[in-house]
Amino acid sequence: MTTPEAHDSTSVGIVRTKHLHFAEPPNELVLTSGNKLGPITLAYETYGALNADKSNAILVLHALSGTAHAAGYFTHEDRYPGWWDTYIGPGKAFDTDKYFIISSNVIGGCNGSTGPASINPASGREYGIDFPLVTIQDMVNAQWHLVTHLGIDRLLAVAGGSMGGMQALQWTISYPDMVQAAIAIGTAASISAQGIAFNEVGRQAIYRDPHWNNGAYYGGPPPKNGLALARMIAHITYLSEDIMHEKFGRRLQNTEMLSFAFKEEFMVESYLHQQGIKFVNRFDANSYLYITKAIDYFDLKSSHGGSLIAAFENVRSDFLVISFSSDWLYPTPLAKEIVKALRANGAHVIFTEIETSKGHDAFLLENEMLERNIANFLRSEYSKRTNTNPDR
Amino acid sequence: MTTPEAHDSTSVGIVRTKHLHFAEPPNELVLTSGNKLGPITLAYETYGALNADKSNAILVLHALSGTAHAAGYFTHEDRYPGWWDTYIGPGKAFDTDKYFIISSNVIGGCNGSTGPASINPASGREYGIDFPLVTIQDMVNAQWHLVTHLGIDRLLAVAGGSMGGMQALQWTISYPDMVQAAIAIGTAASISAQGIAFNEVGRQAIYRDPHWNNGAYYGGPPPKNGLALARMIAHITYLSEDIMHEKFGRRLQNTEMLSFAFKEEFMVESYLHQQGIKFVNRFDANSYLYITKAIDYFDLKSSHGGSLIAAFENVRSDFLVISFSSDWLYPTPLAKEIVKALRANGAHVIFTEIETSKGHDAFLLENEMLERNIANFLRSEYSKRTNTNPDR
Repeated sequence: MTTPEAHDSTSVGIVRTKHLHFAEPPNELVLTSGNKLGPITLAYETYGALNADKSNAILVLHALSGTAHAAGYFTHEDRYPGWWDTYIGPGKAFDTDKYFIISSNVIGGCNGSTGPASINPASGREYGIDFPLVTIQDMVNAQWHLVTHLGIDRLLAVAGGSMGGMQALQWTISYPDMVQAAIAIGTAASISAQGIAFNEVGRQAIYRDPHWNNGAYYGGPPPKNGLALARMIAHITYLSEDIMHEKFGRRLQNTEMLSFAFKEEFMVESYLHQQGIKFVNRFDANSYLYITKAIDYFDLKSSHGGSLIAAFENVRSDFLVISFSSDWLYPTPLAKEIVKALRANGAHVIFTEIETSKGHDAFLLENEMLERNIANFLRSEYSKRTNTNPDR
Repeated sequence: MTTPEAHDSTSVGIVRTKHLHFAEPPNELVLTSGNKLGPITLAYETYGALNADKSNAILVLHALSGTAHAAGYFTHEDRYPGWWDTYIGPGKAFDTDKYFIISSNVIGGCNGSTGPASINPASGREYGIDFPLVTIQDMVNAQWHLVTHLGIDRLLAVAGGSMGGMQALQWTISYPDMVQAAIAIGTAASISAQGIAFNEVGRQAIYRDPHWNNGAYYGGPPPKNGLALARMIAHITYLSEDIMHEKFGRRLQNTEMLSFAFKEEFMVESYLHQQGIKFVNRFDANSYLYITKAIDYFDLKSSHGGSLIAAFENVRSDFLVISFSSDWLYPTPLAKEIVKALRANGAHVIFTEIETSKGHDAFLLENEMLERNIANFLRSEYSKRTNTNPDR
């Protein structure tokens, strides 16, 4: 792995996305809904090297719109690194000099893994909304194939923010013996009514775009208007009011005076428009529907007889749970609910609420406290593992 | 005024909306933008009786989607009273046994007053987006014609919540000698960046509906999909997360099990859909654009050289300012900003933050504290007026 001169020495350098193929019929993956899905392709990347006893593997899991590309650059010309490059690399929190990092995409997505834009073997055409609804548990079950394929019996850690945190929690429940530790950041055992409401208005923005065409748009123009609007709505929830005030306030963009016309003129409007436009070039509208639905459906309490304590009953992992003080989409009380239920099961849990004005997006941004918390937790978990592993 | 048997004795009974016509060319209203608007129709209602010395008149001002119909019923069969019926009537906070209540619609709206759906005299067709942008100040200037028409030199009070509160504040600045007291509830001297963001995504939902047709849809189907979505988005901001949790939580509507399909199934989704559907039957999409823009443009600080203290410099009114603890669209700090600037000018201000989980919508809902605060404030202002008015 070479570090391009244009990129700094803490980068994992040039990387490429790999693809695992599995669940060939008749061995399809059985989904939570009872439907079957196969064949499946799962996109992933790895950074660092797996050690001899395979004790240093960490699975990193992305949020709603993430991809397998969590760190490094695709080319020397690439201007933007992977989505968690701040935290993954030599000497960083997920230290690639020590750990072997696996970053897995999710099924239902649109960045190399099987999703609604994939070819449905039954029809020979794109699935569209014939793609079955997948849950966080289904995503995790697909990732199990990846981890097993890589020959790893027990992950040092699973880690993610937002929907990535949901996957991390689900890993500890679905595969308790395979997860030594979990890092769940800015997440919840289920999102709030308000969270469902925001996801639903985003989906409605897509449904109401005539180009959506009930999901069958792959031969024609995609529903860019609807998807961009969904993203604009969601972006409001990713920022806190404080950081919006700080970044934009009521300032105007490229103008001194109000226009008295219907155009974007406040900076905050321009920001949202840019976010919408950027998004439609990299994301599929149907995947947005599937993944928001997976988030809405995730509910560790209701899927375990109404008890979050019962949900974590068989868990054997240690936990680092982190919330952000200004995150109103996944607020601290939801993190505390997880911590409480885990502790009721005797789990070893470290919980921190990080003070920041940056809202939900904070998990993606540079933050010294986040860096330190992850680094220390992983160091402690790794030494715990090596101490109890005398043949190493 | 008779009270129908079906309606209780604290109702103002059967009412009708009246209309004032003014600003006939060449005497058009000159707007903040410099454009002229005329002729103008303003819809209004009145409840109670104006006393002999005209000292008991209170002007009530509505929010974004309100109408002149603030109290009572149109017919005996009418199931729903006016929007502030909880607070206007015999023995209520705005006691129609004592006060003469005037409820004025706003220009730019779609409920009897001149707005984008009105006929543009220049073209003989509906204005559409040729209607000039109006500001809160323009709304208030139009209302001045109504108050003057009714022969009232000095209002006992102006009162409103949300955008109605903005109008109330503007009245004290534009016509300081005409306003003895102002009641500003759940409002701000300017909305936040987040507030602009929510208004903008609502407007985008309308723009992106192909039926919107750049505002020229009056001959064809209106942009109901876009307007309903705008309303759904806005409704999220009217409720607090707490009350959403209380009312809906993660409960399902009419079903025991998740559908694993793209349909509304959570109660909160159904609620938002109902709000959207109800709204399109009573509101014009273009008016939604104009009125949200008026809210975004309202900024007492920037319109007074960047100083909110300067904005209130010539104000001679007393003030009752009320915020709600769970209102995140017009949060308490914005109310306190108003109070601080008013007190810096030596104004007599009563400020109360009312504890409630009901969010921004609380100003429309039954609330004993709100009732008591308004009633006491008005009683005190009225006795102040009669004491200093010995010829009464």
